[in-house]
Amino acid sequence: MDILPLELENIAGQKVSDKCGVVALLEDSGVEYRLIQSLRILQHRGQESAGICIYNGKNLKVYKGMGLVREVFSQIKIDQTGDRGIGHIRYSTAGSSVIDNAQPIFSRVGKYEIAMGHNGEIVNAEEIRNELESKGYSFNTTSDTEVILRLLAINLARGEDIIDAMKLTFSKIRGAYSLVIMINERVFGVRDPNAIRPLAIGKTKKGFGIASENVVFEQLGGKIIRDFYPGEIIELTENGYKSYRFGNESPAHCMFEYVYFARPDSTIDGRNVFEVRKKIGEILARECPADADIVIPVPDSGRSHALGYSIGSGIPFVEGLIKNRYVDRTFIMPTQNKREDELDIKLNPIKEVVQDKRVVLVDDSIVRGNTMRKIVKLLRDAGAKEVHVRVGSPPIKYPCYLGIDMKTKEQFVAKEGKSLDELAKEFGANSVAYVSIDGLVEAIGFEKNNLCLGCLIGKYPIPITNLNANNFT
Amino acid sequence: MDILPLELENIAGQKVSDKCGVVALLEDSGVEYRLIQSLRILQHRGQESAGICIYNGKNLKVYKGMGLVREVFSQIKIDQTGDRGIGHIRYSTAGSSVIDNAQPIFSRVGKYEIAMGHNGEIVNAEEIRNELESKGYSFNTTSDTEVILRLLAINLARGEDIIDAMKLTFSKIRGAYSLVIMINERVFGVRDPNAIRPLAIGKTKKGFGIASENVVFEQLGGKIIRDFYPGEIIELTENGYKSYRFGNESPAHCMFEYVYFARPDSTIDGRNVFEVRKKIGEILARECPADADIVIPVPDSGRSHALGYSIGSGIPFVEGLIKNRYVDRTFIMPTQNKREDELDIKLNPIKEVVQDKRVVLVDDSIVRGNTMRKIVKLLRDAGAKEVHVRVGSPPIKYPCYLGIDMKTKEQFVAKEGKSLDELAKEFGANSVAYVSIDGLVEAIGFEKNNLCLGCLIGKYPIPITNLNANNFT
Amino acid sequence: MDILPLELENIAGQKVSDKCGVVALLEDSGVEYRLIQSLRILQHRGQESAGICIYNGKNLKVYKGMGLVREVFSQIKIDQTGDRGIGHIRYSTAGSSVIDNAQPIFSRVGKYEIAMGHNGEIVNAEEIRNELESKGYSFNTTSDTEVILRLLAINLARGEDIIDAMKLTFSKIRGAYSLVIMINERVFGVRDPNAIRPLAIGKTKKGFGIASENVVFEQLGGKIIRDFYPGEIIELTENGYKSYRFGNESPAHCMFEYVYFARPDSTIDGRNVFEVRKKIGEILARECPADADIVIPVPDSGRSHALGYSIGSGIPFVEGLIKNRYVDRTFIMPTQNKREDELDIKLNPIKEVVQDKRVVLVDDSIVRGNTMRKIVKLLRDAGAKEVHVRVGSPPIKYPCYLGIDMKTKEQFVAKEGKSLDELAKEFGANSVAYVSIDGLVEAIGFEKNNLCLGCLIGKYPIPITNLNANNFT
Amino acid sequence: MDILPLELENIAGQKVSDKCGVVALLEDSGVEYRLIQSLRILQHRGQESAGICIYNGKNLKVYKGMGLVREVFSQIKIDQTGDRGIGHIRYSTAGSSVIDNAQPIFSRVGKYEIAMGHNGEIVNAEEIRNELESKGYSFNTTSDTEVILRLLAINLARGEDIIDAMKLTFSKIRGAYSLVIMINERVFGVRDPNAIRPLAIGKTKKGFGIASENVVFEQLGGKIIRDFYPGEIIELTENGYKSYRFGNESPAHCMFEYVYFARPDSTIDGRNVFEVRKKIGEILARECPADADIVIPVPDSGRSHALGYSIGSGIPFVEGLIKNRYVDRTFIMPTQNKREDELDIKLNPIKEVVQDKRVVLVDDSIVRGNTMRKIVKLLRDAGAKEVHVRVGSPPIKYPCYLGIDMKTKEQFVAKEGKSLDELAKEFGANSVAYVSIDGLVEAIGFEKNNLCLGCLIGKYPIPITNLNANNFT
Repeated sequence: MDILPLELENIAGQKVSDKCGVVALLEDSGVEYRLIQSLRILQHRGQESAGICIYNGKNLKVYKGMGLVREVFSQIKIDQTGDRGIGHIRYSTAGSSVIDNAQPIFSRVGKYEIAMGHNGEIVNAEEIRNELESKGYSFNTTSDTEVILRLLAINLARGEDIIDAMKLTFSKIRGAYSLVIMINERVFGVRDPNAIRPLAIGKTKKGFGIASENVVFEQLGGKIIRDFYPGEIIELTENGYKSYRFGNESPAHCMFEYVYFARPDSTIDGRNVFEVRKKIGEILARECPADADIVIPVPDSGRSHALGYSIGSGIPFVEGLIKNRYVDRTFIMPTQNKREDELDIKLNPIKEVVQDKRVVLVDDSIVRGNTMRKIVKLLRDAGAKEVHVRVGSPPIKYPCYLGIDMKTKEQFVAKEGKSLDELAKEFGANSVAYVSIDGLVEAIGFEKNNLCLGCLIGKYPIPITNLNANNFT
Repeated sequence: MDILPLELENIAGQKVSDKCGVVALLEDSGVEYRLIQSLRILQHRGQESAGICIYNGKNLKVYKGMGLVREVFSQIKIDQTGDRGIGHIRYSTAGSSVIDNAQPIFSRVGKYEIAMGHNGEIVNAEEIRNELESKGYSFNTTSDTEVILRLLAINLARGEDIIDAMKLTFSKIRGAYSLVIMINERVFGVRDPNAIRPLAIGKTKKGFGIASENVVFEQLGGKIIRDFYPGEIIELTENGYKSYRFGNESPAHCMFEYVYFARPDSTIDGRNVFEVRKKIGEILARECPADADIVIPVPDSGRSHALGYSIGSGIPFVEGLIKNRYVDRTFIMPTQNKREDELDIKLNPIKEVVQDKRVVLVDDSIVRGNTMRKIVKLLRDAGAKEVHVRVGSPPIKYPCYLGIDMKTKEQFVAKEGKSLDELAKEFGANSVAYVSIDGLVEAIGFEKNNLCLGCLIGKYPIPITNLNANNFT
Repeated sequence: MDILPLELENIAGQKVSDKCGVVALLEDSGVEYRLIQSLRILQHRGQESAGICIYNGKNLKVYKGMGLVREVFSQIKIDQTGDRGIGHIRYSTAGSSVIDNAQPIFSRVGKYEIAMGHNGEIVNAEEIRNELESKGYSFNTTSDTEVILRLLAINLARGEDIIDAMKLTFSKIRGAYSLVIMINERVFGVRDPNAIRPLAIGKTKKGFGIASENVVFEQLGGKIIRDFYPGEIIELTENGYKSYRFGNESPAHCMFEYVYFARPDSTIDGRNVFEVRKKIGEILARECPADADIVIPVPDSGRSHALGYSIGSGIPFVEGLIKNRYVDRTFIMPTQNKREDELDIKLNPIKEVVQDKRVVLVDDSIVRGNTMRKIVKLLRDAGAKEVHVRVGSPPIKYPCYLGIDMKTKEQFVAKEGKSLDELAKEFGANSVAYVSIDGLVEAIGFEKNNLCLGCLIGKYPIPITNLNANNFT
Repeated sequence: MDILPLELENIAGQKVSDKCGVVALLEDSGVEYRLIQSLRILQHRGQESAGICIYNGKNLKVYKGMGLVREVFSQIKIDQTGDRGIGHIRYSTAGSSVIDNAQPIFSRVGKYEIAMGHNGEIVNAEEIRNELESKGYSFNTTSDTEVILRLLAINLARGEDIIDAMKLTFSKIRGAYSLVIMINERVFGVRDPNAIRPLAIGKTKKGFGIASENVVFEQLGGKIIRDFYPGEIIELTENGYKSYRFGNESPAHCMFEYVYFARPDSTIDGRNVFEVRKKIGEILARECPADADIVIPVPDSGRSHALGYSIGSGIPFVEGLIKNRYVDRTFIMPTQNKREDELDIKLNPIKEVVQDKRVVLVDDSIVRGNTMRKIVKLLRDAGAKEVHVRVGSPPIKYPCYLGIDMKTKEQFVAKEGKSLDELAKEFGANSVAYVSIDGLVEAIGFEKNNLCLGCLIGKYPIPITNLNANNFT
């Protein structure tokens, strides 16, 4: 599964995915530049908007805009400096690309200024919002992050100790959330009691930080300290950090971070993503062998799995599809409304490589299948004799309510009762096979009940009461 | 008094003025274009930001940005259409030029979506805000408009009838306010019980409208119906409008609208602005004669008063200063930090006109005096034999708390106890004279106690309890 | 005649006017900023594009772009500095608004780098171009300025002395031209032998300069030295300037500079523009009296003439039309193709002023008449009892081939054989009258044969051989 | 060798590389969109500027701007349409990034409009320019493309037949050039007599085209017909194409296209680029074995070679360095002058992969060595036990004068007389080895004398007379 095809299939206005990335730093003056660099390191988690909030010694100051981190901060003049702050990037989804949804979001109540960045999804946001609105609390957006923010403000206004106000707030909130929060000069990270989305604390060259993925610490010249525990609040201090616990459920880490979302060089909850993907590929080769000449990946998302498949099967790995790095975002000529199929110039087969070959084509996952259909055709047109599709995750058949924007069963090409042969026919492939759930679990290396497999099996670590939930961050 | 010098003196970060303009229309589809045209007609009331909110048949949709109306709406793509909406423009002030302060502002509570645009200033905003914050209501900005918005939301959430909720809200609010409000598909205008800032209802070619100045109706092909009464809510309907009253104080119209703010072709509360200014000039000639050869205006703000002075005195009116239309906004070269004195290329004397002449130089008002000092020098350098400064308003000596950003006595060049001779010396002029308060009142044509003369006499129509009030709209 | 209506009538793609402005400075380091300020002072002469060329001590460096001076140089980073340079602004015309036409234009030949800015029009440009092209000299544009540039390059390449090469070049060129030229570090101004377009040399605070209008020198802290003689080359030097003559025809100054183009505070060839316009008004009052109550100008272009008319006639001058300063350029919403009539919000009558009045409406000139028709209607609708149109120039009936983009007779509302009554009917006015040619000549104060009156009488100071000439600068 | 490091090392202002891409199409109406898509397909050949020229049925019309194809054509409104045209993209180099250098360039002479796009470098451009300038032909730029354009114009003006004029022109030009040319409605491609830079003709879905790389045809729904012969002019016609020969030297194809420049999925002069690179890797493994645990590529440029090395050596291929796709262009915060080392966040090792491993690190080539030094350090810091650098091209020791911007010997890390041990020490590697020249030639598959190996051996297919040549396209 690759970014572009998702965007393309997304035209109808239906949101498809909702990755986000968060970071918090307490270092020394000039932290704004390193916050921005951190967001660039996490840019794969979101391309719609980027923002930072810094403490200038007196007040919180938010800078945010639409677009890539580089674009936003080439245009916005940051006229303040500080030694601590938070940052957020948001995934690009069609339709809802408006500045109002950019984060961090900000509010003030009494003596408190509050800023917040969120990766995840709150299951009972609408319920809480309705309750608050009935008391006259008004909202500027429909975002579930604003619900957390306003609720936290209420608890702070009650005169609670800041930590108590946070614990009280999170005791009401159910869902997946990795948060970075500033309350005046204090900087916090929070991970939900099921630890669904990733969040880690680390050392940087000049202080301490919190980030969605540990590569941030490494690339800022430091290293990971540890992942957040389930239900943990960590406050960054000048000498290190303090930890507070507010929940201790059994973890249910999102398997999709390992399969597709996270960077291969990240290590999440102790498992290196590249190694997991390679292992998936090896297990896939064992579970679903193919009689073929070459293994080629769908670049770049399927490369690690394909390498593993090659190792597991002994079939040579080779690059057979070239991806145009510059077709990263949709181009629309001002004078033309019709949007061309960008895939036509995004991927190109190497005829010399695939001609007359029996090809194993490996991707990390398949959601709707449109892209896979086109890629198989590309390979056929380039002369491949056979195309065997192998997929690095089990079939996705159920909606996600915990942070990934796959909300309806209808969109999935895999469905209960549809056979692999039917899928092969749909894709125009000679065969299609997916890694098994047990194979996936084995590759990740946790107990099965410590993973969220909701989109694979339809059972979720948190009761989903409101099936219309539709606000993600 | 002219716009540019104010901006120039404004560098230290102190806000100087806070004019705004509002408009509401209920016409037929495509109202967004006519809202924008209305804002262009009112552009003199604010150049910092511009915004509109339209009802698309289902929801409210806000579009706003920084800059002139033309600039904002050349860049923003308006992707919805509607038959009703509101608009707002905000005055340009250094420092606070941030998108967060742009209006209309928006919030939702229960079944209501609310949008609001405000011209004026709330005296007890901080008091109300503190009270609300103590109950956990959090705020995104320090703007007094947000205080009105959140309070209205609370009253709406209580289940009040919409009109009752508005009345309840305004019963708590003290200050100057001309508001345009949308609550879902309903469109309202509100004027405070002292009718301090202007607001009128009128017919347009295709429906009905509300606007800060009646030129909007005329230029949209209609005409004024009448000015709002003090303490009146007017709701636009498809067939006309409905009126509700919530207060009935004695009016206290801001005299500065007549002297400087409003367009000369506007008629406010029954008085045409150009005629008032011309009359001021005539009275000024009678009260403060000068033995001189020519009358020249400070263009463009002093032109109407100067014409009156010429009529009243019999001294020929002539254009002696040419204003460069293109020096409307400060230009800063990217590579240069030093800001040159733009006045040097903004105004130029016609040597042939002023040489060896005794000149009466007429402007509408003087706030800090820096500009006047420079203009007198320009005329001297061009050969004027004498320069007699005549001012179309009495000396401004006291802060305004009701919508004009003059907050400290220190900024004013006129002060209690400073003589006209001292002022003449400061300006380098042969004489300085101001129209009297009685003369001003006579020219406007209201009873003295029906005008707000706060900045002239230090007494205000509304008790000013919080002297630190500093949020204007 | 005002700028906007011209633009509006211009949609069909026909160029209407072709004013330009030029400047040259030799001062001290940092001249680029003062070149830009000079262009802002001359901005009324062109709004399409702006550019400067500076000598960085080694090479010429050109910076130019589309739009107002402020817009262009807010975006372009000037990465070099110098003590001398030239600048140019170009008039805004629909259709040909392309960066290729922006000036200064640049070329290099042998050891010479050449940059050039031009105000005027060459009559035999096509002839020379054809001759050069037949020898293989290729051109990047259709501009007549490029013809001068390439011809000068050829003469320089022949090894001629620079001054001789220039004289040789101008001996072949016929038409109206005020040029600023750099050849490596040397800075020149050139005025054609008929001195048709204005050009003056002056002192600035820090050196010497050349400019289309003398206000540049005054606003840069200096003063005019003198206007260029007909057929004169002036070279700026570190201590002053050197003059070379290459022609000595009888002058034929363009009357339209006095009537409309130049700033009122400029003095061209010894005549102050404001005084000329006022005098025209006085003569107009004498020649074409009207039985009326008030004189009102079409703002801003008719103001000086109207003041003169009021003085000459004794009828009171009053402002009866208000011009919206912000409707300076056409606004097109991205989502809307239809261009609204901007005049609807550009000019507004003051009803209180004109109601029941017999009005003398004064403008400087009438070209096509569309705008005049609309203004008369505005005044009628506002209640004017009578409208008498008085025009500060004789009827324009013939094309201009010497720098003003009026190329066909068909566009003019005034025509041979059309009576004033017919015109009055067309405009909806009670009467129409123009100043006489003799009146105009008297007001300007030159001998009749020292003025170019081509557009009034159809006879030109230079034989017009090629009636299809269509490249202006 | 990867793009970014080159840019980074480039700060001193020295141009580093000068790839360009050209395309020509004759299809049906709306060709402008497909020209733009073609440039996006060739975007890897240049990121500085992009431009197209189309024939609108009457005239040539050029559209061009600075930046990526997507950026340029999101901003430029293309207001004409046509059925034929040419396009060009230019490589990003610091310093010379000015719009004047963007192509296609345009000129007109007599009845001809000429547009031209160029990939290559002319050896005798300065010589020809001097000769032309001595005859008064003036130039707007220092580009060697303008020399070809002006010379062609001279030959066309002589009344020559168009093909003859072209032949005459190319008979004077020495160097590397792949050109696309329009002369009025006629569309041509030209390849120099040594066929140094690539150029091919192909079929598209709707017509015929010419392009730097054949992937253009495939991705526009067609396929390659053949590569241009040495010294061939091809004219596109409505039914196909016509060929004219003007030279027939022995080919001397640039080896660097195979090693680094071209897309892996392109096939140039009959050799598929990916296959050549893989073969190089295999030969490199044979020539320079290493006792190691894993082979990892420098992504993305070294991937194909690394795969080949793995195949050749039997050492497992694995991804050990992750490249951040979003760090594609240098980011400079407006408030910060210091440019951070972008490599720090561009590449990241996977600790789990390289720890305690003996690593073979494969890249395509090494120019200055700075990047290689940093990468070796990254791997060491991540725990690699040994790092053996293997390079997919022989040492680059000599300047290129035929289209690649490597102009001085001083810049190269490899030098005559420096041993591999010294290099290993400089890089901090355990060993360094390069493929041999014979190995490279074998992998490409041409006779050695049919390749240009100038930068490897210091002998060039064309006599280099002017060693100061410094204008590339």
